[in-house]
Amino acid sequence: MGRSEHDPEPDKGGSPTFSPSAELPPLSAEDLAALHRLGEQWQVSDAVRALPVDPQADELRPTAGGAPAGAAPLFLPDRAGQLTATAAAERRDTPEGRAAGWVRRLLLGRPLSSASTLRERMPKVVALPVLASDLLSSVAYGPEAMLVILALAGSGALGLSLPIAAALVLLMLAVGISYRQTVHAYPHGAGSYLVASDSLGPRAGLAAAAGLILDYVLTVAVSVTAGVAAITSALPSLAPFSIPMALAVIGLLLTGNLRGIRVAGNIFAAPTYFFLIAVVGLIAVGLVQAAARGFTPTAPPATPAVEGLGLLVVMRAFASGATSMTGIEAVSNAVPVFRPVEWRNARTVLTWMVGILIFLFIGLTLLFHLNGLAPRSNETLLSQLAHVTFPHGPWYWIIQVATALVLLLAANTAFNDLPRLLYFMARDSYVPRRFLHIGDRLALSNGLILLAVAAAVILVAFGGQTHSLIPLYAVGVFLAFTLSQTGMINHWRRHRGPGWRRRAIINGVGATLSAVVLVTAAVTKFAAGAWVVVLAVPLLIYLSLRVRRHYDRVRHALSLDTTTSPDRPSGEGSIEEQTPAVVPRQIRHLFVVPVARLNQATMRTLAYVGSLGQPTLALHISPEREEADNFRSQWATWGGHIPLETIQSPHRVIIQPLAEYVSALRLRHSDLTITVVVPDVVVEHPWQRVLHYRTEQRLRRALRRHPGIIIANVPTHLSV
Amino acid sequence: MGRSEHDPEPDKGGSPTFSPSAELPPLSAEDLAALHRLGEQWQVSDAVRALPVDPQADELRPTAGGAPAGAAPLFLPDRAGQLTATAAAERRDTPEGRAAGWVRRLLLGRPLSSASTLRERMPKVVALPVLASDLLSSVAYGPEAMLVILALAGSGALGLSLPIAAALVLLMLAVGISYRQTVHAYPHGAGSYLVASDSLGPRAGLAAAAGLILDYVLTVAVSVTAGVAAITSALPSLAPFSIPMALAVIGLLLTGNLRGIRVAGNIFAAPTYFFLIAVVGLIAVGLVQAAARGFTPTAPPATPAVEGLGLLVVMRAFASGATSMTGIEAVSNAVPVFRPVEWRNARTVLTWMVGILIFLFIGLTLLFHLNGLAPRSNETLLSQLAHVTFPHGPWYWIIQVATALVLLLAANTAFNDLPRLLYFMARDSYVPRRFLHIGDRLALSNGLILLAVAAAVILVAFGGQTHSLIPLYAVGVFLAFTLSQTGMINHWRRHRGPGWRRRAIINGVGATLSAVVLVTAAVTKFAAGAWVVVLAVPLLIYLSLRVRRHYDRVRHALSLDTTTSPDRPSGEGSIEEQTPAVVPRQIRHLFVVPVARLNQATMRTLAYVGSLGQPTLALHISPEREEADNFRSQWATWGGHIPLETIQSPHRVIIQPLAEYVSALRLRHSDLTITVVVPDVVVEHPWQRVLHYRTEQRLRRALRRHPGIIIANVPTHLSV
Repeated sequence: MGRSEHDPEPDKGGSPTFSPSAELPPLSAEDLAALHRLGEQWQVSDAVRALPVDPQADELRPTAGGAPAGAAPLFLPDRAGQLTATAAAERRDTPEGRAAGWVRRLLLGRPLSSASTLRERMPKVVALPVLASDLLSSVAYGPEAMLVILALAGSGALGLSLPIAAALVLLMLAVGISYRQTVHAYPHGAGSYLVASDSLGPRAGLAAAAGLILDYVLTVAVSVTAGVAAITSALPSLAPFSIPMALAVIGLLLTGNLRGIRVAGNIFAAPTYFFLIAVVGLIAVGLVQAAARGFTPTAPPATPAVEGLGLLVVMRAFASGATSMTGIEAVSNAVPVFRPVEWRNARTVLTWMVGILIFLFIGLTLLFHLNGLAPRSNETLLSQLAHVTFPHGPWYWIIQVATALVLLLAANTAFNDLPRLLYFMARDSYVPRRFLHIGDRLALSNGLILLAVAAAVILVAFGGQTHSLIPLYAVGVFLAFTLSQTGMINHWRRHRGPGWRRRAIINGVGATLSAVVLVTAAVTKFAAGAWVVVLAVPLLIYLSLRVRRHYDRVRHALSLDTTTSPDRPSGEGSIEEQTPAVVPRQIRHLFVVPVARLNQATMRTLAYVGSLGQPTLALHISPEREEADNFRSQWATWGGHIPLETIQSPHRVIIQPLAEYVSALRLRHSDLTITVVVPDVVVEHPWQRVLHYRTEQRLRRALRRHPGIIIANVPTHLSV
Repeated sequence: MGRSEHDPEPDKGGSPTFSPSAELPPLSAEDLAALHRLGEQWQVSDAVRALPVDPQADELRPTAGGAPAGAAPLFLPDRAGQLTATAAAERRDTPEGRAAGWVRRLLLGRPLSSASTLRERMPKVVALPVLASDLLSSVAYGPEAMLVILALAGSGALGLSLPIAAALVLLMLAVGISYRQTVHAYPHGAGSYLVASDSLGPRAGLAAAAGLILDYVLTVAVSVTAGVAAITSALPSLAPFSIPMALAVIGLLLTGNLRGIRVAGNIFAAPTYFFLIAVVGLIAVGLVQAAARGFTPTAPPATPAVEGLGLLVVMRAFASGATSMTGIEAVSNAVPVFRPVEWRNARTVLTWMVGILIFLFIGLTLLFHLNGLAPRSNETLLSQLAHVTFPHGPWYWIIQVATALVLLLAANTAFNDLPRLLYFMARDSYVPRRFLHIGDRLALSNGLILLAVAAAVILVAFGGQTHSLIPLYAVGVFLAFTLSQTGMINHWRRHRGPGWRRRAIINGVGATLSAVVLVTAAVTKFAAGAWVVVLAVPLLIYLSLRVRRHYDRVRHALSLDTTTSPDRPSGEGSIEEQTPAVVPRQIRHLFVVPVARLNQATMRTLAYVGSLGQPTLALHISPEREEADNFRSQWATWGGHIPLETIQSPHRVIIQPLAEYVSALRLRHSDLTITVVVPDVVVEHPWQRVLHYRTEQRLRRALRRHPGIIIANVPTHLSV
C-alpha cells in the first residue's frame, strides 16, 4: 500500500492528477478476459452491422429548422478520423437553449477543453494568495483569542503570551515542516485524507476528511459573515441587507471559482497581497516605534482575575491561539494545481506561507505585549494596535479595509480545497461519483456548488449569527492535522529511508502538539458546540462507508467477471433477475402495446412494433363492458393484425392494472423479455401537458421496479 | 342544435348521464372507414401473432415474491371470457403500496364498480338537504343585507322592506318556475352552462360557467370561514387556530364527498334539517307572539338618514336581498344524481326548496318588521329575533348552533355542483379531460380536489378574512341566472310547443329581474371587488376557448381520417413529422446504444438490441483521446459485434452531444426511425439514486422534443 516518491501513484484511476477520465476507469484484466469469453458466444445477424447511415458524415449540422445553411458543424473528425463534438453540439439548439448558453458564457467564459488541463495551473505568485488567504486571515483573530483566555486570569497573566506564542511557533514550525515532508512524500496530493488513508487506513482518512469538510463549510459561512459584518459596521444603513449581501458574496465566490483556477487566482490575488503589505507595514512601523522606546513594554490596564492561573487556562490559551494556524493545510490538497514540478513548487509556497505566518504572528503578539494592549469587547486588538501605531492619517482605515477583504477571501481557500478533497474521496468511492466530474471550465463544479449551497444554508439557518460556529471548526482542522502527522510517522517507519528517524521525530512533535490542541479544544468547547463536530465526524464516516459499500456492491453486481467471485457475499450485490440475458440468442421477446384509443399516435406505435416482427400483444383497459365490446369491434374493423386483450377495470383505474398485468405475465414467464411500447403524444408548450394524461410517464414509474421489462415510448409530436 | 324533451341528448359522449366511458368516446364513421383502409395496407409476419404466452392464463397472481401461494388472482375472466381486474390489480404490491391502499380504504371506503352507478343515486329526502344547504343558509344573511341598505336612508325607510321583499318573492317564484321548466326541458342536466350553451351559443354557456365556477370556489372559502368564525366566537381560545380549522373543515368536506354521493348525503343531511326545523320553529313562535299583539308592528329605533331615499337605494336593497337566492341553481346541474325518473324527482325537490325559501324569507322579513328590529353592527338580525322571541331557555343557543352548522355545510353544495359542471365542460373539451374521470368511489374526484385546493388557497391568501368576498359571488350567480333564463326564452321561441308563450313570459320575467340584480350588483359593488369578477369571467372564457382549440387541433392532428380534411387549417393541428409511419413496411430502423462502460448492464442492453436483428450503432462519448482509444480496444476485445462510434467531448459534456448526434442523424435521414436504447441501472432505495448519473432520464429529456426518436431503457435491477 505504501506510496512515496518511489511509488508516485496514489490514485486508482490511472492519471497522476485530476483527470476527466477518472469517471471512466479502465477494466480489470479479469473483466477483459470475461468480456472476451462473452464476445465469443455472440452471434448477430449481418443486418445488425448494415448501417443505413454513415456515422461520420461531416454534414452533421445543427438540427433546428431555422439554422442557416452554413451553420457550424456539430462534430468534426480529427486526424485519426475520430469525431469530436464542437461547442455547437453542447447546447440545446432552441431559443431558450441558446439564451442559457449565452448567459453561461457571460458568467463563466467559454468552455475549456481537456487538453487545456496542463495550462490551467497556478504560478507560485498566484497560488500563494489563493491558498494563503484563509491562513493569513487567521492572524487577524488568533493572537487575540489567546489573549482573551489569558485575560481571564487577570492582566498579570497577559505576560504569559510570549512563552505560549513561542510554543505555538514551535507547533507552526512542526506542522509546516511536517507538511513540507508530506508534500514531498505524496507528490500527487498530500492532503490529510490521502496521507491518513494511506498510512493509517481508510477510517482514519475518512475521519480527517470529515474534519476538513466541516472546517471548509463552516469557514465559508463564518468568514463571509465576518467580512459582511465589517462592511455593515462601516455603513450601518446596509445592515438590514446583510444576509442577501452574504449570499451575494457566496455567489460571487462560486462564480469566480466556476470560471476556473486561473480566473479565480486573478480575482482573488490582489486583496491578499494588499492585506499582507498593510500588516507587514504595521508591524515594521510598530517595531521602529518600540525600538525608539528601547523595547520597554507598557503595562496593560489592570483587570481582576476571574479564574486562577492554572494549567487549564494555559492550555486553553494555547488551543485558542492555535486557531491562527487554520488554513495551513490548504496547500497539501492543492499540489496538483501547481505548475510542474508540482510538489517542489507546492513546497516552496508552503514554506513562504509558514514563514509569513510566523512573522505576522510573532510580530503582532510582540507588539500587543509591548504596547500593553488587552482585549476589549468593542474593538479588536488589531484595530487597537493600528490606532496606537497610526494615530493620524488614512493608515488606520487602510488596515481595516484590508482586514475585511481578507476575511471575505478566506472563504476562497475552502472553495479551492473542498472540491479537490471530494474528488479524491469520489475516486475512492466514498462520495457520489459526480464529484469526479470536471466542469466545462476545468473546475470541479459539483464540489463548488455543494460547498456554496451548504454554506448558504448554514448562513441562512443561523440568520447570519455565525460567530458561535468559530470554535467548532478548529476541532475539525486539528483532527485532520493530528491524523495526517501520525500517518507520516507510520510512513517513515515503513520506508526507513535516509534520515527517517529525524523526520519521524519532527512529525511526532507536530502530531503531539496538534493532538494537545485537538483534545483541549474538543473538551473545553464541548458544551459550546464542539459536540456537533464530535457527532458529525462519525456520522460522515458512516455515510461515506455506506456509499463505498453501495459502489462496491454495484461494481461486483455489474462485473463482467461472473465466474471468479468467491468473495462476493451471497445475496448482496446481485442483479435481481438474470434477464435480459447477456447474449442475444438467449432472449425471447414479447412486445406489449397499451392502446386507449385508435388514432394516428396509436397506429404509428402499432406500425413500429409490427415492423420489428416479434410476438406482440395489444392491451386495452376498459372502464365498462360496453366500451370494451366497442373497442374490440373497432379493432376488428382495422383487421386485428395484432392480438388484442381487453381488460375491464370496474373501478376505472388505468395504470395499475396495466402494470400488474404486464408484470404478472413476466413473473409467469421469467424467460421472456417484455418490451412495453407506449404511444406518447408530445405537445409543444409545457402548459398543454396538463391537458393530457401522462400515461407514458405514469406507466414507466409503475413498472420501474419490475425487472425484465423494457419501456419504450413512440412519440407523436404535435405542433398545435 | 335544439335539444328539448323531443331530443333528450345534450351530450356528445353517447351516455345520458355520467359515464366512465366518456373518457373514451367512440370513433366517427369517417375514422372507422379510414381505419379499415389503413388495415388493408398492413402486413406483418406471422411471428407477430405467435404469442409465447396465454394472455388469459388465470394464474395471473400477485407479483411480489412474498405473496402466498393462494393469493387472490389479479384478473378474472367473466362469462364472455373477458378479463376483469380485481382489487388486487389496482394497488402496488409493495409494503408502501399496501399501506397506502389501506389508508385510502379507511378514508374513502372500498372502490365501487361502474355497475353501481345506478344505485349510487340520491333519494329526494337526501337530495333536499345536500342541495339546499347553500340556499337555506342564504336566508341567514340575505334579508339583513337588504335592511342594511335601507337603513342608510334612515329608520323610516325600513318599512320599504315589505314591498321590496314582495318583489324578491316574485323573483324567487320566477327563477324557481323557470328552473322547473328548465329541468323538464333539459332532463339530463339543466345547469346554466348546458342551457345557455345550447340556446345562446358556447360563449354564453362559458360565461355562465365562469360565473358559477367563481361562485362555487368563493362559496366554499367564505362559508367555511363564516362557520369557523361562529365556532371561534363561542370558544375564543380556538381563535389562533382558525385557519388550520378551516382547512380541516375543507379536508373533511373533500373526504366526505370523495367517499361518494350516498355517504356525503348521510353525513350532511342531518344539520340542514336541524337548521330548517329550528328556523321554522322560530318563525312559528314569532308569528304566534305577533298575533297575540294583533300584528301591530313595533317602531324601529330611530336612526338618521345618511343618504336620500332614491331609486338607487331601493335597487341596491333589492340586489342585496337577492343574495338570499344564491344556491337556488344547485338542483339544475345535479339532475343526473336523482333516482329515476330523474327530472321529475329533481323538479319536486326544486319546488320544495323554493317553497321553503319563500316561507323562510317572508317569515323572517315580516318578523323583523313586526318586532321593529334594525341592523346592528355587533349582532345579526337573526340573533336579535331569536333573543326577542326566546328571551329564556336553550332555544336561542339551538338556533345559533344550527345557523353555524348550516353555514359550514353551505360549502357542501359547491362540492356537489362544481365537479358536475366541470364534467359537462370537459365533455365539450373546454377544461382538461381529466375532469371526466370518475374516481373509484364514483365521485368526480378531480373536480372535488380542484375545488378544495382552490378554496384553501384563497382562504390562506386572504388569511381567513374572506368577508370582503361575499359581494363578489352574487355577480357570478346572477350572471348565470340571467343567461340561463334568457336561453330558455330562445328555447321556447324555437320549439313553440303548447303554451310556449306563457312559458317564455315566465322566463322573461325571471331573466329581467335577474339582469336587474346583476347590473345593480356589478355597478354598485364594482370598486368593492366586483371588478375581479368582471375581469375573471372573460379570462376564464378565453382560457376555456384556448383549451377547446387545443383539443380540437389534437383531434384533427391525430385523426385517422387524413383524406377528408379540407377544413383543417394549414399548419395548425399537424403532426410535425410523418414518422414513424402508420404501416410497418414503411419503417426503416436504426438502433443506437449509448455505452459509457462495458459491464453487465451494457452487455444486457447490447444483447437486447442484437436480438432484434436491426441495424445498430453503439456510441461512446469520451472526455479524452486516450480514454476513447482505450474504450475502442475494449470493444475489440469483446469482438466488435456492433459498429461503434466514439465521440470526443473535449469539454466533458455527455448528454447534449449524444442527443445532438442522434438528432442530427435523424435530420439527415428523415426516413429513419431511430430507437435509442439506454442501459439503465435501477437501484433499490431512493437514496441510492444520488449516487448514480441518471443518464436515461436526462437523455430522454434532451431528446423528447425531437420527432422520430424512440427511447427505450433496458433496466438492470440491483438489490444492493
